[in-house]
Amino acid sequence: MSKISPLSGFPELLPAQRAVEREVIASLSDTFELHGFANIETRVVEPIDRLAKGGEVDKEIYVLQRIAAEPDAKAELGLHFDLTVPFARYVLEHAGHLEFPFRRFQVQPAWRGERPQEGRYRQFTQADVDIVGRDELPFHHDVEVMAVMVDALGRLPIPRVSFQFNNRKLIQGFYRGLGIADVTDAIRVIDKLDKLPAEEVARMLVERVGTTPEQAQRCLELATIRVADSSLVERVRALGVTDELLDQGLEELAAVVEGCRAVAGDRVDVEANLRIARGLDYYTGTVVEIFMEGYERLKSVGGGGRYDALASDGRTTYPGVGVSFGVSRTLIPLITDGVLSGSRPVPSVALVALNTEDERGTSTAVAGALRTRGIACEVAPSPAKFGKQIRFAERRGIPFVWFVQADGTHQVKDIRSGEQVDADPATWAPPEVDLRPRISSTATSTNTSTPSELEENQ
Amino acid sequence: MSKISPLSGFPELLPAQRAVEREVIASLSDTFELHGFANIETRVVEPIDRLAKGGEVDKEIYVLQRIAAEPDAKAELGLHFDLTVPFARYVLEHAGHLEFPFRRFQVQPAWRGERPQEGRYRQFTQADVDIVGRDELPFHHDVEVMAVMVDALGRLPIPRVSFQFNNRKLIQGFYRGLGIADVTDAIRVIDKLDKLPAEEVARMLVERVGTTPEQAQRCLELATIRVADSSLVERVRALGVTDELLDQGLEELAAVVEGCRAVAGDRVDVEANLRIARGLDYYTGTVVEIFMEGYERLKSVGGGGRYDALASDGRTTYPGVGVSFGVSRTLIPLITDGVLSGSRPVPSVALVALNTEDERGTSTAVAGALRTRGIACEVAPSPAKFGKQIRFAERRGIPFVWFVQADGTHQVKDIRSGEQVDADPATWAPPEVDLRPRISSTATSTNTSTPSELEENQ
Repeated sequence: MSKISPLSGFPELLPAQRAVEREVIASLSDTFELHGFANIETRVVEPIDRLAKGGEVDKEIYVLQRIAAEPDAKAELGLHFDLTVPFARYVLEHAGHLEFPFRRFQVQPAWRGERPQEGRYRQFTQADVDIVGRDELPFHHDVEVMAVMVDALGRLPIPRVSFQFNNRKLIQGFYRGLGIADVTDAIRVIDKLDKLPAEEVARMLVERVGTTPEQAQRCLELATIRVADSSLVERVRALGVTDELLDQGLEELAAVVEGCRAVAGDRVDVEANLRIARGLDYYTGTVVEIFMEGYERLKSVGGGGRYDALASDGRTTYPGVGVSFGVSRTLIPLITDGVLSGSRPVPSVALVALNTEDERGTSTAVAGALRTRGIACEVAPSPAKFGKQIRFAERRGIPFVWFVQADGTHQVKDIRSGEQVDADPATWAPPEVDLRPRISSTATSTNTSTPSELEENQ
Repeated sequence: MSKISPLSGFPELLPAQRAVEREVIASLSDTFELHGFANIETRVVEPIDRLAKGGEVDKEIYVLQRIAAEPDAKAELGLHFDLTVPFARYVLEHAGHLEFPFRRFQVQPAWRGERPQEGRYRQFTQADVDIVGRDELPFHHDVEVMAVMVDALGRLPIPRVSFQFNNRKLIQGFYRGLGIADVTDAIRVIDKLDKLPAEEVARMLVERVGTTPEQAQRCLELATIRVADSSLVERVRALGVTDELLDQGLEELAAVVEGCRAVAGDRVDVEANLRIARGLDYYTGTVVEIFMEGYERLKSVGGGGRYDALASDGRTTYPGVGVSFGVSRTLIPLITDGVLSGSRPVPSVALVALNTEDERGTSTAVAGALRTRGIACEVAPSPAKFGKQIRFAERRGIPFVWFVQADGTHQVKDIRSGEQVDADPATWAPPEVDLRPRISSTATSTNTSTPSELEENQ
């Protein structure tokens, strides 16, 4: 076989790095479940016409064809490029078997054939939480689902994250109250504020959207409101625009920010940022983007919002609200930068040393006894000199080596301290902290805490 | 959107069914980790020339193309059809960063564009454990890796499984000792014994492979040996063939059977079945197929063996031994038949009832207090009459409903028994048995045991 080179856009993790990803996914899943969200997994393929409905992403879809298909056979299936399209289809397909409001989480890869760059891969894992209703979905679920993600990310050993919320009703109501005719177009222009200077954006509002200079000025004033405290309502009211939809959006936004702040702990910021517009097409109320401190270059590491028609089969409409966290987008840069690392590449806490090949049965029995009490271990591959067996453990980060003595008694050595003590395979246990591979994080003050420990401390 | 119909060959699970699959995967992973196997995940795509090396399966590969690719662009990537090809490539690509022998497990979907039938899907999840060495891999790892899967399946609440072992050296040595020239061809004919009558197979051995009738008879006698006790060596020796490779194979087979029987418990059978040949091309020693009682129609639910050249980069060869369990192939028929079911479709143990919409904050605080102690719960979606809120819980299988009384005290009702008692959100805990969704299994005597309980009992 030829030399292997990595496939651009399809990153793979080494075992100790994968341990980090698994712990993070386990922690996210635990939090989602604590909030009553059920896990589902959808197939990875969808009919192309369903994937292409969004329009804008169709260039990035991977289509599938059986290798033995006729050359002119039309491809009918593609890999999903997010978890929202398959979830919407799952809801429609299985609606008769689901209870609404249906609260689900989903952690799966998705695929986009786009140009790879830091944080953007052709295969990437996402973690999504959504609540979907049948015909109706009360607003309080917006608060609920956003608070779940705030809670979940607050438990991860990653750098500080910031949830920046806005509300589409607020923007639309404000623009309508100002008398701007083409609200959608105005939002599209305002969305360029992170790339263009304010004067340029103001000029475009006047020239392209047809606003007056005064209207353009008000739009800019609205878009630059960013508050982390309770002054939001006051700040918006001060702009002097009145509109029923604006009032509703403002009330919703204040409620989301307040509800999220209540569970945010001290490692998550929650702000109202009135420049966030996010995907003009299907969001209809709450919108959010999530940013990570020191990693602003990744743009958002997550986002989501409210969509009044997540799915519809013509008779019934399913409104939804949800938020997605980019697991690969966040973790791969953090792992690459050494911010996150796994404490060891193997689950084993102990290596059971081997005296002679004939005594493998004895060592295997010791390992079996440890395993019945949940202690992961392995038996040395060969009866090498003990020094060599210890180095074998060391290279894998296995903290303990177990010896069966000539007289049938046992000893266990902590190879980090060198301490060696008598031990009984029926009762010995390692310190709790060594039981599983741990995440080392330079992003949190306790730099070897695992997600589950963070959880216990809260 | 149009009416959705299921996509043949791409089964999806409802939430309570998915809970079964998740518990099974968690149990398998726990066991693999107890034995010191590290988890990895490979990307789902491989270069087509690597996938097609096997030859025989190439018709079933799904190839990938970006939807915007030029019409005559050559497809270069395909979805993996098993976890062995990507694992071999992973080992070659990352060898410099791995410690050998490298012990890994992998639980991922794979794809084959074949005709769907019961137990055979176009997307299916497999759980693989393998040990791979650099240049060499001592035989005792055969025993080890097979024993891990025996241990793992013995903890699942599925029908009785049978591990049927053979050894390629034994077969080859026996045929060589008999004086048969084309051993591979003879094995291929003997492999038809499960479809054709013995006389027909004997005739084919004579006519096609060129054996004498006596040689053919001996081959049949060997192939019909199937023993679940220690009489294996004696039975084979009684056929009077002597050969060095036969001796080695016989010794290995006896060791694998004995080592697996030692961990088999009472829900797994371990046998030597000398008819098992399995994939002529790359297995070189131990081979195994796994069958499930009452589901013989699925053929094997898992299998594997020893391959002296799992991977090679020209300079270094990586021998391996491993075994794969068909998660989808096993679980989907068991779920469809009602043998396995999930106790509830949601993780919530408790529904916190809502008195009025204005008191949502109070109920949310109760839920928050329960969650800090690991109790999954959700707040009622609306302040409906309590009877309606209880029925809401009932439909989801949530066993407890929590009430905040007018005087600020709390009560919790077990809606199965109707018993309602005073409770404090800071201290109340449900019975351990209700804490997580459980697997109900008609296949085990304790028909509501979860994998983790089985584990504790062993």
